[in-house]
Amino acid sequence: MSDLRTVRPEIPDFEKYHAGMAIEEIQERYGLGKVIKLASNENPLGTSPVVQQVLKQNAGLAFRYAQAGTPRLHAAIAEHLGLPVSRIVAGNGSDEIIDLLVRIKARPGQDNIIAFDPCFSMYKLQAKLCGVELRQAKLKPDFSFPWDDLLALADENTAICFVTTPDNPSGFTPKASELEALARALPPQCLLVIDEAYMDFAQPLEEYSLLPRLNEFENVAILRTFSKMYGLAGLRLGYGILPEWLADYCLRVKLPFSVNVLAEMAGIAALSDTVYIEATRKVVSEGREQLTRGFQSMGCKVHPSMANFLLIDLPAGASHDAKGLFQALLERGIIIRPLSSYNLPESLRVSVGDASENRALLDVMKEILGS
Amino acid sequence: MSDLRTVRPEIPDFEKYHAGMAIEEIQERYGLGKVIKLASNENPLGTSPVVQQVLKQNAGLAFRYAQAGTPRLHAAIAEHLGLPVSRIVAGNGSDEIIDLLVRIKARPGQDNIIAFDPCFSMYKLQAKLCGVELRQAKLKPDFSFPWDDLLALADENTAICFVTTPDNPSGFTPKASELEALARALPPQCLLVIDEAYMDFAQPLEEYSLLPRLNEFENVAILRTFSKMYGLAGLRLGYGILPEWLADYCLRVKLPFSVNVLAEMAGIAALSDTVYIEATRKVVSEGREQLTRGFQSMGCKVHPSMANFLLIDLPAGASHDAKGLFQALLERGIIIRPLSSYNLPESLRVSVGDASENRALLDVMKEILGS
Repeated sequence: MSDLRTVRPEIPDFEKYHAGMAIEEIQERYGLGKVIKLASNENPLGTSPVVQQVLKQNAGLAFRYAQAGTPRLHAAIAEHLGLPVSRIVAGNGSDEIIDLLVRIKARPGQDNIIAFDPCFSMYKLQAKLCGVELRQAKLKPDFSFPWDDLLALADENTAICFVTTPDNPSGFTPKASELEALARALPPQCLLVIDEAYMDFAQPLEEYSLLPRLNEFENVAILRTFSKMYGLAGLRLGYGILPEWLADYCLRVKLPFSVNVLAEMAGIAALSDTVYIEATRKVVSEGREQLTRGFQSMGCKVHPSMANFLLIDLPAGASHDAKGLFQALLERGIIIRPLSSYNLPESLRVSVGDASENRALLDVMKEILGS
Repeated sequence: MSDLRTVRPEIPDFEKYHAGMAIEEIQERYGLGKVIKLASNENPLGTSPVVQQVLKQNAGLAFRYAQAGTPRLHAAIAEHLGLPVSRIVAGNGSDEIIDLLVRIKARPGQDNIIAFDPCFSMYKLQAKLCGVELRQAKLKPDFSFPWDDLLALADENTAICFVTTPDNPSGFTPKASELEALARALPPQCLLVIDEAYMDFAQPLEEYSLLPRLNEFENVAILRTFSKMYGLAGLRLGYGILPEWLADYCLRVKLPFSVNVLAEMAGIAALSDTVYIEATRKVVSEGREQLTRGFQSMGCKVHPSMANFLLIDLPAGASHDAKGLFQALLERGIIIRPLSSYNLPESLRVSVGDASENRALLDVMKEILGS
């Protein structure tokens, strides 16, 4: 006989999500004024002036539901990409699209999903929540992708293969030709979902993304987000570029108002905000160089990254381990990202900030490590 | 052998959500300037000036993720209700909470959910998406609740009983004592979820809501929204007041950033925006009277409503049926809600507008019906 607290057997195992800490949390905890946050891969330029203007002008619309399924936003994304609108599905962050794809495609207790290890936590959490087995292939020690190990996990019940590129938290970015080989080698029923949350920072696009040739691959879906390059993390906006039949299912299954009206309007404006996009590309590319040189001068190992963050390992014999350095930085008002939730307790992830934030981090780190 | 288009068996049956039409859709379709929308139960006063100010002041925050799990918003809601914060879970609209509750509590292929018929479409859609049986008891012809019929559907596998009060689309609102009897009569494993999306419009609260006595019922959860009384429909913000153990599961299972940062800040401000709340209560209560009298003078049947909308049936022998009247109003720039998606093709739902919108609707309706 079940009682009130009976729940699905998958549920009790879930732990709370480990997010990057918010600025207010740090200010409160350590009584700090200014805090520099380089923990969540947010845009170092802040919110674009164009987007701020749109938000201010449309504040009065908050009481109205957006059009169900946000067709104007879908049309703007489709036009931006030069693809049919029937392939686009926007969500409350790409998190929602990840959840939808698992819910639609994977049959609980029967199908499985494959991904690398470590991977974005949402693949794991949503597979578990959906009652679907997740199989993972360990990344190589340099965080590059062991394609054969991944493929070896696939069988006739593999519904989805998730690949993140540029990868998080390493920044590793395989060549598009390798993704093409994967797409062609996966079993016929398996959808390859390429999560390109950070692809806007990788240049040239055609060298790393299958997007320019997406029409050649009927089994490939691509996820994109407005959280990073477009600076809309707080508004929650991501989208999938999906096979048409799958986009149709998503629109039928998804909560009809999951994208809020201000995200919709900001997203449309952000797509053509070329000044901000170019400035972001520049500040991230220069900041990545600045941080790489600075970390290397302290003897850190810096993993090559095409994204707006860097994964680093501290030098052997440093005065602090990763956890200790994270804590010491925190107390001085700088938040970076420890990676124990990725099972990488010896590494740290640093989001690229603007030049002065990067400088401040490097200076404080030097002081802490006494180098 | 399954192919690429193989999906969970529940999926292909889904149809697109039927939302109230957006103003822009009508303007485009009929080449209209001004359009009056009384279709989605939005706040007739528009967005509160206090909230607009908060949105404008915080437009620059759009690039930052909110704190995962929005603890400040949770604390503000808890304080507003005088309940422990450990019972509060905010979501991307209460739609997200409905989905979470089904995903957590109902075991697919084993448990069932019970509700009245018709009911809010999300109960149906999310049960189906979760692979959980939904059992429904037909409302009485006057839209009051046949409690015994509902209870007769419950068995030892009933995970959740959903009740909406004030009910949508009828506005019917049972006494709290009836909800109490239901809570006490349901089988021990069954959670009673009372969806109070429109309860802010019912007075006095203790006569209709179990909220003031929630501590007496360990098997009751209540859903609330900022979309109606608080005028934040477009920002997407709802919450559940849940048993503590269930709130804990929700926070562990839910997408960590599902509530956007502007909804969080607007929600906190809206809770103490008493001028707007009182003004909304007044305009809705007066408008409900105005519309009721007007519809009755045309011979319509008006169902008694505690909410910010009215369900009406046209008089026998009217020149138009419900669908025809809806269409004729649309062409003249007034959007109301046809109810074929609720399986009530002969009825219409009208959101209460401000005095001039209500007047315009009544005048145009009189003209169309020739009465």
